[in-house]
Amino acid sequence: MAAGNGRDYGYRRRVQLSYDEAIQKVRETLKEQGFGVLTEIDVTGTLKQKLDKDFGRRYVILGACNPHLAHRALNSELELGLLLPCNVIVYEDGDGCVIAAVDPGAMLSIVGNPALDEVADEAGKRLRTAIDRAAEGS
Amino acid sequence: MAAGNGRDYGYRRRVQLSYDEAIQKVRETLKEQGFGVLTEIDVTGTLKQKLDKDFGRRYVILGACNPHLAHRALNSELELGLLLPCNVIVYEDGDGCVIAAVDPGAMLSIVGNPALDEVADEAGKRLRTAIDRAAEGS
Repeated sequence: MAAGNGRDYGYRRRVQLSYDEAIQKVRETLKEQGFGVLTEIDVTGTLKQKLDKDFGRRYVILGACNPHLAHRALNSELELGLLLPCNVIVYEDGDGCVIAAVDPGAMLSIVGNPALDEVADEAGKRLRTAIDRAAEGS
Repeated sequence: MAAGNGRDYGYRRRVQLSYDEAIQKVRETLKEQGFGVLTEIDVTGTLKQKLDKDFGRRYVILGACNPHLAHRALNSELELGLLLPCNVIVYEDGDGCVIAAVDPGAMLSIVGNPALDEVADEAGKRLRTAIDRAAEGS
């Protein structure tokens, strides 16, 4: 499954779950991998409220943070907060949902600080595991 | 002023304001540029609460969203929610603060979808204006 029209910057699985179940499930599997959800943006609701536009599907952005990894990363790169937390999205897709996590390696490639490579690898591995477990348990 | 140890992915100004004043000021100038602040992460408080670590300075991540630009971007690239909203950070720096916004052009370079170039340019221009006005009014 492709992310869009260009390069890939996320890891995704399609799940046969309702929207609410998919969100609940991935919150659980993120927690197992040490990620708390610090922020939640209801994309569909925000576009409806601010622009009166119907986005046509429910869509949420969860801001997931593993505090140990974030602390290490911020100690190497003070302004990395410009790219944190790691986003996980859930959106309706036909009769199921897609759950996707940003690829921290792709995102941190724009920083060009080799001290972040290890923490990006670790975060990516844990996010992919969370997405896989949400999909496999569905 | 450099962002960190590598390439630049943000636009920043140092301001002679208290931390609380700097946050209030940039929220106002973001609003003038059509950005609402959808999320706010108290980095220092989160690290203290989750890890009992003292980060040594106050630091906040504001998730800023211009709904018109976000709507255009999501229509071109469904999974762009992996990279939204645009972060603005405020952190204490000596006797003042730094206010910085992510460079949407740098961030969207990892997507490689030319349909996003115009919206990234527009978002970047507006974010830089918001940062400049917060600094000039200080």
